[in-house]
Amino acid sequence: MTFDPWRGFTQPQLTDDWHKKLTEMARICRGQILKMTTVAASGHPGGSMSSIETYLTLYNLANVDPKNPSRDDRDRIIVSHGHTSPGAYTALAAAGFFDIKPALHGFRQAGSPFEGHVERSVPGIEWDTGNLGQGLSVGIGKALYANLSGKNFHTWVLMGDGEQQKGQISEARRIAIKFGLSRLTAFIDFNGLQISGKITDVMPQHIKAEWEASGWQVIEIDGHDLRQLYDACYKAVHNSGAPILILTRTIMGKGVSFMENKEDYHGAALKIDQLDAALKELGGIENDVEELVRLRKNGPPPPFKTAHAPYPQVKAGDPIILGASDKSDNRSAFGKALVSVADANMSASGFVMAVFDCDLAKSVKTDGFAKKYPANFFQFGISEHSTAATAGALSAEQAVSVWADFGVFGIDETYNQARLSDINHSNVKLFCTHSGVNVGEDGKTHQCIDYFSVLNSTFGWKVITPADPNQTDRIVRYVLSTPGNFAVIMGRAVVSMVLDESGKPYFGESYRYRYGRMETIRKGEYLALVCAGNMLPYAMPAWERLNSEGKRITLMSVSDWSDLHPDDLKALSAYDHLVTLEDHNVKCGLGATVAAAMFEAGYSAKLTKIGVSGYAPSGTPDDLYRMIGIDADGVTKKINKLLQEARVLK
Amino acid sequence: MTFDPWRGFTQPQLTDDWHKKLTEMARICRGQILKMTTVAASGHPGGSMSSIETYLTLYNLANVDPKNPSRDDRDRIIVSHGHTSPGAYTALAAAGFFDIKPALHGFRQAGSPFEGHVERSVPGIEWDTGNLGQGLSVGIGKALYANLSGKNFHTWVLMGDGEQQKGQISEARRIAIKFGLSRLTAFIDFNGLQISGKITDVMPQHIKAEWEASGWQVIEIDGHDLRQLYDACYKAVHNSGAPILILTRTIMGKGVSFMENKEDYHGAALKIDQLDAALKELGGIENDVEELVRLRKNGPPPPFKTAHAPYPQVKAGDPIILGASDKSDNRSAFGKALVSVADANMSASGFVMAVFDCDLAKSVKTDGFAKKYPANFFQFGISEHSTAATAGALSAEQAVSVWADFGVFGIDETYNQARLSDINHSNVKLFCTHSGVNVGEDGKTHQCIDYFSVLNSTFGWKVITPADPNQTDRIVRYVLSTPGNFAVIMGRAVVSMVLDESGKPYFGESYRYRYGRMETIRKGEYLALVCAGNMLPYAMPAWERLNSEGKRITLMSVSDWSDLHPDDLKALSAYDHLVTLEDHNVKCGLGATVAAAMFEAGYSAKLTKIGVSGYAPSGTPDDLYRMIGIDADGVTKKINKLLQEARVLK
Repeated sequence: MTFDPWRGFTQPQLTDDWHKKLTEMARICRGQILKMTTVAASGHPGGSMSSIETYLTLYNLANVDPKNPSRDDRDRIIVSHGHTSPGAYTALAAAGFFDIKPALHGFRQAGSPFEGHVERSVPGIEWDTGNLGQGLSVGIGKALYANLSGKNFHTWVLMGDGEQQKGQISEARRIAIKFGLSRLTAFIDFNGLQISGKITDVMPQHIKAEWEASGWQVIEIDGHDLRQLYDACYKAVHNSGAPILILTRTIMGKGVSFMENKEDYHGAALKIDQLDAALKELGGIENDVEELVRLRKNGPPPPFKTAHAPYPQVKAGDPIILGASDKSDNRSAFGKALVSVADANMSASGFVMAVFDCDLAKSVKTDGFAKKYPANFFQFGISEHSTAATAGALSAEQAVSVWADFGVFGIDETYNQARLSDINHSNVKLFCTHSGVNVGEDGKTHQCIDYFSVLNSTFGWKVITPADPNQTDRIVRYVLSTPGNFAVIMGRAVVSMVLDESGKPYFGESYRYRYGRMETIRKGEYLALVCAGNMLPYAMPAWERLNSEGKRITLMSVSDWSDLHPDDLKALSAYDHLVTLEDHNVKCGLGATVAAAMFEAGYSAKLTKIGVSGYAPSGTPDDLYRMIGIDADGVTKKINKLLQEARVLK
Repeated sequence: MTFDPWRGFTQPQLTDDWHKKLTEMARICRGQILKMTTVAASGHPGGSMSSIETYLTLYNLANVDPKNPSRDDRDRIIVSHGHTSPGAYTALAAAGFFDIKPALHGFRQAGSPFEGHVERSVPGIEWDTGNLGQGLSVGIGKALYANLSGKNFHTWVLMGDGEQQKGQISEARRIAIKFGLSRLTAFIDFNGLQISGKITDVMPQHIKAEWEASGWQVIEIDGHDLRQLYDACYKAVHNSGAPILILTRTIMGKGVSFMENKEDYHGAALKIDQLDAALKELGGIENDVEELVRLRKNGPPPPFKTAHAPYPQVKAGDPIILGASDKSDNRSAFGKALVSVADANMSASGFVMAVFDCDLAKSVKTDGFAKKYPANFFQFGISEHSTAATAGALSAEQAVSVWADFGVFGIDETYNQARLSDINHSNVKLFCTHSGVNVGEDGKTHQCIDYFSVLNSTFGWKVITPADPNQTDRIVRYVLSTPGNFAVIMGRAVVSMVLDESGKPYFGESYRYRYGRMETIRKGEYLALVCAGNMLPYAMPAWERLNSEGKRITLMSVSDWSDLHPDDLKALSAYDHLVTLEDHNVKCGLGATVAAAMFEAGYSAKLTKIGVSGYAPSGTPDDLYRMIGIDADGVTKKINKLLQEARVLK
């Protein structure tokens, strides 16, 4: 199925017919922008009016399909300056994506799909934005998908000019150049104003020079001239060189004399009594605002049925199981499982997989994948913010999107991108090695001891802390083959395999990973040591030592802390004393979660939390664990003391 | 007291004497860099050796005082590429800041001050770095302090070349230009290599062109030529134009033939058997590594006594108290209190205060301060990452450093900068307006519903959610006059004053703010409604309605959730049923914290958590609160249902 023939900028010039049509649409849309913001008594008319010609050109003439907005071969149009949603909504409606009426009365109304910043709930919108500086990175994710999937569609990214102050854009510019993304085209709505005034006053910036310094081609045009816009888009779709930035010189509030070049209209609607004059200036557009206000009182318009790309079918491949006496690190197990899953799927038709790296492939063990699948490996350098957004955007296509990094970069540095991925229902597979105090000699700034509490602050991210290489292997396979945003947390150190009481690998042949469930590693009495998965190899020797002294406690392991299962909580309630063990800020990790869950379930028990209570210094993981008391020795001593105090199991 | 006369780059040229001394120091330092990394069996020798001439030039010839490293008028030397710590430590020692021996055997040893990445625990080190891309923003904080305090010292920022890939640097570059920081000088150690190989392969970048596009002067020199380095520094201290970047062309691993230009030595130490050959090449430096290994076994060297700048004495000024029938928003109360505190202190000699804005002054209500104290107001544009780091760096001087922004930008977008400020023991005063679902029409991407769980993932940040404008005023005064990192969380909506039972403002004349304590707003029985401070204005009408129906429950308010007081927990334990109310992700906010604290204190009770259980749409705060059931109606209904189920208080 091809797109309508006038689409795709195939004609060398804009026809007179289209010029006339688009001109009239722009006039109508301007009126609609004013109405919808006035009815909502909020919103951003100024930038919507300055970018409306760009919106109309793209939604009418790019390869998108109003009747089938989620066609997989459509051009991707990313609205980075999400606050210009009235511009996007009215242009989408003008292009036939939906009827404009509900947007006019339901804009920014609680429950309406027409939210204040653009959301994927509206047909034609590819990504929820609003936090500025994200769009170009998102566009890169789409452009990479175009290449990897062979669909070769064009990606268009619309940005504001104040937005150019965001550092992330400079990262994305370079990445686009490095990967030769000539089918990625960016626009800047260069109206010269931001909330606080002129961009030259707020933050002087040589926008054109900066983009050129990054290697982009820059085409500067009058952004209200439809022929110039068309010509620039034509060049862009026929471009095989460096990606093109179309710098559209525009006028904020364009079309209404008393709004033009006034920063006040960046983020403020006209009052009802100003609307009449404005609509008159636009060539006598009818003022039906009273009817719209009345319709608004009936409640928000209904949601659209929007279809997102399905998560790909991913074969999990065969587990790699290490023997009882093997030693390895979890990150190596991750690296091997990643290649194994790729091997099991890469030859399948239409299967798309990308692995992102930020200058740490050898450490995070994606180097094996990079060697075997160089076309699917993307070295983004020290550009974590852009990488996080790109991985998110790609993962919302029918693709497996993997990003491996140190915990501080994959989580702490880029939390907001993770939050935005969550809002966008994406499927990022994040693998964080060098997490916890386990990062060792790199010290405080590299200690990601908040991986759970930070990502658990979203609604969708699931954080999993595998115990040993065997469990890591299973969890990597689970995560890669399951929809949703997942973070797998690994330390740096080499660990022993966890064994069952018969001396065989606990996470061996017969083990099946069950998300959200605890594993009872050893069954004992009185006291249960509940340890975070990644601490299990350190808890095992503690258990052994206590056991050899005749103190048989219970040892439980939980790799995913967020969704503790009622049955597991009930099992815990059988013990007088619970001890939690974690390589995480002890204020807000496993211990706190167990405590809250037990309280809410109505259980009581003594609780002792062992974890990280301050930034640790720089040293070997073993030394640090000993120093802060979370090693086998520390745990043994602590539990012995508790048992002594309780005068049981002596 | 002046610095030693040869310091400050006062002479037009490097003397032969100094050239000889520095040349010899460089040779010795290279040997020490190799020894300390080999003894630690980890660390980053390559970049340390390429930047050693820069380190030595600055620590020996800039205005710093080895005998008094915390002199307030010293030049600030910021090491942004913190992994080159061996370079910094050996150069500091060569310049007389301390004896090198403990660093040689105690590098990267658990408990040693000589950590893997530079830390303020070492005399001469200004800022803990390691996460790249932070230093220039930190330098801006120092340079602004130089201006505001009238101390006019010079600020030097040392960076790596791979580091230039971080977007935050582009933000900082523009800010430095905007504020004419000619006494800020940056260095890039341009050795052409990063962990994964050549920077031109990892992420092609036109570094010089980018800095020039931002308006910087760029001086390109041979970074191993001490005379060129001196000349560039001389130009820098006599510069009154645009700030200068000194691009030092260097060789990774410089001085040892088999290490030169090998990226493997970015982050790997020589093996013991390679060390001999290397030390020989450096002109026969003695190999005493066996002794060093022996010394290391005695444990880490002792800490230094380092003195950080004291937090300034800040007068809290007189409270502004609104009357019982007044209505206002908390952000306006913040804006007024900020000006009031400034008024009370600004004329004091040596008092330094700065307020940072990211293009939202009118919304976050710092516009009043900006108007009255324009020299102390810094408009940084849409550059939140750089702003967060600058605010942190300034706050570590004897200065009041205020940043006001929307919650999503001040917390979610810049969490890692907040974490780095925490590690650096800074004193940032962060005021987040437009937090919670209360942000309203801006919708999902603007909903900061994780302010507590995210910042509480650090050890030091304290998060406070004031109830009404009266409490906001007290809390703003408390926060500005108290050392430490604080975040004050405010919504957008106008609220009524909270009144006591006699109808007077609860947070009136006689109110004193007590950090960490709950306020018993109304005393009742059976059920306690524990509400987050910022939800109290919404809980009050619920209480009134229940009370009018003869159901007198208890209403408690808690503005700071992290450090719940044992006495308050005990008071709560008197109730059969607790209901928590928060405009925060209900998984990880007040309810979860109360649950965990109660469990740990050994209490039991039924708990019902009312909060935000998913991203809310875009709409008025009132509509959204109603829709998600956290408004007065929703709370009343919920509590009525609970009371009915319990068959009490009917």
